[in-house]
Amino acid sequence: MATILDQLTAALGADVITPGDAVDRRYHCDWSAIDPARPLALIRPRTTEQVSTALRLCHAAGQTVVPQGGLTGLAGGATPRADDIVLSLERLAGIEEIDTSAATITVRAGTILESAQKAADDAGFLLALDLGARGSCQIGGNLSTNAGGNRVIRYGMAREQVLGLEVVLADGTVVTSLNKMLKNNAGYDIKQVFLGAEGTLGIITRAVLRLHARPLSRATAFCAFADYASVVTLLRQAQSELGGISAFEVMWHDFYDFIANHPTTKQKPLPDRYPFYALIELSGSDPTADQARFEALLGKAIADGAILDAVIAQSEQSARDFWLIREGHAIDTMPLVINFDVSLPIGDIDRFVTRCRADLQARWPGSHNLFYGHIGDSNLHISVMIAGEGPSVMHDIDAVVYEAVRAMAGSVSAEHGVGTLKRAYLGYSRSAPELALMRQLKQALDPKGILNPGKLL
Amino acid sequence: MATILDQLTAALGADVITPGDAVDRRYHCDWSAIDPARPLALIRPRTTEQVSTALRLCHAAGQTVVPQGGLTGLAGGATPRADDIVLSLERLAGIEEIDTSAATITVRAGTILESAQKAADDAGFLLALDLGARGSCQIGGNLSTNAGGNRVIRYGMAREQVLGLEVVLADGTVVTSLNKMLKNNAGYDIKQVFLGAEGTLGIITRAVLRLHARPLSRATAFCAFADYASVVTLLRQAQSELGGISAFEVMWHDFYDFIANHPTTKQKPLPDRYPFYALIELSGSDPTADQARFEALLGKAIADGAILDAVIAQSEQSARDFWLIREGHAIDTMPLVINFDVSLPIGDIDRFVTRCRADLQARWPGSHNLFYGHIGDSNLHISVMIAGEGPSVMHDIDAVVYEAVRAMAGSVSAEHGVGTLKRAYLGYSRSAPELALMRQLKQALDPKGILNPGKLL
Repeated sequence: MATILDQLTAALGADVITPGDAVDRRYHCDWSAIDPARPLALIRPRTTEQVSTALRLCHAAGQTVVPQGGLTGLAGGATPRADDIVLSLERLAGIEEIDTSAATITVRAGTILESAQKAADDAGFLLALDLGARGSCQIGGNLSTNAGGNRVIRYGMAREQVLGLEVVLADGTVVTSLNKMLKNNAGYDIKQVFLGAEGTLGIITRAVLRLHARPLSRATAFCAFADYASVVTLLRQAQSELGGISAFEVMWHDFYDFIANHPTTKQKPLPDRYPFYALIELSGSDPTADQARFEALLGKAIADGAILDAVIAQSEQSARDFWLIREGHAIDTMPLVINFDVSLPIGDIDRFVTRCRADLQARWPGSHNLFYGHIGDSNLHISVMIAGEGPSVMHDIDAVVYEAVRAMAGSVSAEHGVGTLKRAYLGYSRSAPELALMRQLKQALDPKGILNPGKLL
Repeated sequence: MATILDQLTAALGADVITPGDAVDRRYHCDWSAIDPARPLALIRPRTTEQVSTALRLCHAAGQTVVPQGGLTGLAGGATPRADDIVLSLERLAGIEEIDTSAATITVRAGTILESAQKAADDAGFLLALDLGARGSCQIGGNLSTNAGGNRVIRYGMAREQVLGLEVVLADGTVVTSLNKMLKNNAGYDIKQVFLGAEGTLGIITRAVLRLHARPLSRATAFCAFADYASVVTLLRQAQSELGGISAFEVMWHDFYDFIANHPTTKQKPLPDRYPFYALIELSGSDPTADQARFEALLGKAIADGAILDAVIAQSEQSARDFWLIREGHAIDTMPLVINFDVSLPIGDIDRFVTRCRADLQARWPGSHNLFYGHIGDSNLHISVMIAGEGPSVMHDIDAVVYEAVRAMAGSVSAEHGVGTLKRAYLGYSRSAPELALMRQLKQALDPKGILNPGKLL
């Protein structure tokens, strides 16, 4: 009897299959670089039909398959084990159509996000999905992980951009549902099942994404606050009175102190004596008036004492400098950093920070713990830096942070997904009935468990 | 052995169960009034636990259950058969919490939409979901049908308003997932499965809905166009240059002719000689400038010839008069009207109208066929009025309209759902693999088929 590799080669051609010993190392793991492994083989189909054929054969043989996009994930979701076959969507790339009447773009899964953004822009629209890895990540991976990123507060997560989807099921069945309509209640909205499922329920091959109007103005400010309540009040006021708030990035003082005073930081927008900072961005539709409205709102907030201090970007360079602070690349220069991506109800985030900081300091008195994030989206990032410890401390730190998340009914994953890294903590944010229901879905759609085994659940 | 009614009465108390012969007629059908039936019994639980107990007993007995909300559906989705038990959520009502920091409202399924809107407004927020039946419909029904309504172009469908959900599964398992975070990628987003499933996969008992900032300004206009391409161009231009377009309602000339010249119509905003009309509404955040920006954009469009004629509401009364035209209540005075709710890619809608009108005229030369809808949402409504025919003509008209929808890859249901009325046509808009996948979900979650049998699938 032919091996699964022989069968795949016979059906798809040698050009599509790379045997394990010839598989380049970049397919061995995602950007987390945790537990890389050389897979049994690499399949790189060029068409949906080839994806279908590959899955049909693997399903019959009980062969496990790990789908890969741009490999920019940070949770190990696309990292294979030695006995898995990797199925990369990178050759199933390209834009099939931009429909300017419907305001949609139809793309193949392997399309790089940035090239889809550029095509949308060339057609006069905005593809709202945006994240730091835009130049490497692929749309299929963005949708499979329900990526978040920079504009969620204004446009929602990756899920909210999707109108239609084509998916290949575990047994090779192709489900083509390339809907372009904003409203379609003809039966269950089956695409929702696959969005954010990290490739464990099916492999996304094509998608129809909605496009938005391009913003015509942009205004950016860096503000300081006395307390967290003032931060939330300004968030709601800005959303109400300006509309179009496209970023509301909050930094706790320990984050700002570290970044603003780091030798690699050139511009320090505000003094480092304040308890809270926020980068606020407005993306508006009135280039003649938006900047003045933005300045008026912040000016009034300073006069009222709602903001302690603020600086408004007077150039694109100045706005970029503000973002450089928030992006905090100085963190990457530290020898050992453990990064977290969690979410909590917006009103509870500062209480969480206080508790989490105290728990970390109690256990590791010399630790540097930086708190920051997309607070308008309920999303908090944490960077824990501990001098004099090795990577083995990671699991202990995970336990402390996720225990605080559990205690405050937060989520152990806001936007990065679960993959392998957060799997042990999924039960901190999901109840037994929720997990049982997830397993029921997995069992229904992939009863042999061949799709991305060991991930998420 | 005790009958299922005896078991339910013993477990829940006689107060919760009403035997069939005592069930009020209003529980016999939804607003479509098609095929009313007296159910075996009516259950009206007061708590999630009572819903769970009822389903556990019905599941064990193989007893079918039809969930009911405010019964304002138009597709027969909540109408029981004689051997079904109706489970009304009307007593499981009330607002549990408004979280002003998180901008969320937590409601029980039986809460009337309008009372939730009012509570949100009192707290300084907008609950964006809105439809004509707001005074009668219940949130549970809105979510189970993924209701659309008046503000979809700006805020999305009911699905987009939901952050968390509590659902009781067919076997009585309670899955409580009352998430308040905008970002939460901790595993599958299981709530998506139940939204828009018309009560066939589980019964929604509670929900967390997101709240938006209240608009601070409103501007409304009634415009006339020479052709459909100009309509779509203005839609995209208004979205780009004004932001905040909250309604874009298009009327084909046959609709406008009929409504504007009907004896019950008091105000005719524009002459009836134009091919297309649109009601355009801006909901903005700048009360001092929005009206002027709106007028400037329309003034320029008239000067350029992109609009043939326009009138801008100078008062709330004038805006209401525009809406009265669009709502077209004169249609309800006709003896026999068959209404449709379909969707098509925005660029294809006028081609669809031309074909559909021709097909209807060819078959019924005396028919009046009115086309109108939320075109910015890809949603078209059709009212077919035929003198001298009885209700039996309905199925023939369905066949003609849905055949045109099928030919142009549209959806037989944009926002009204499938229920029993559109079940026969579901295959016009969904492929065999899509339908098979829906059946797989149904089989996984309700293997005994006790939840809302005969609906949707």
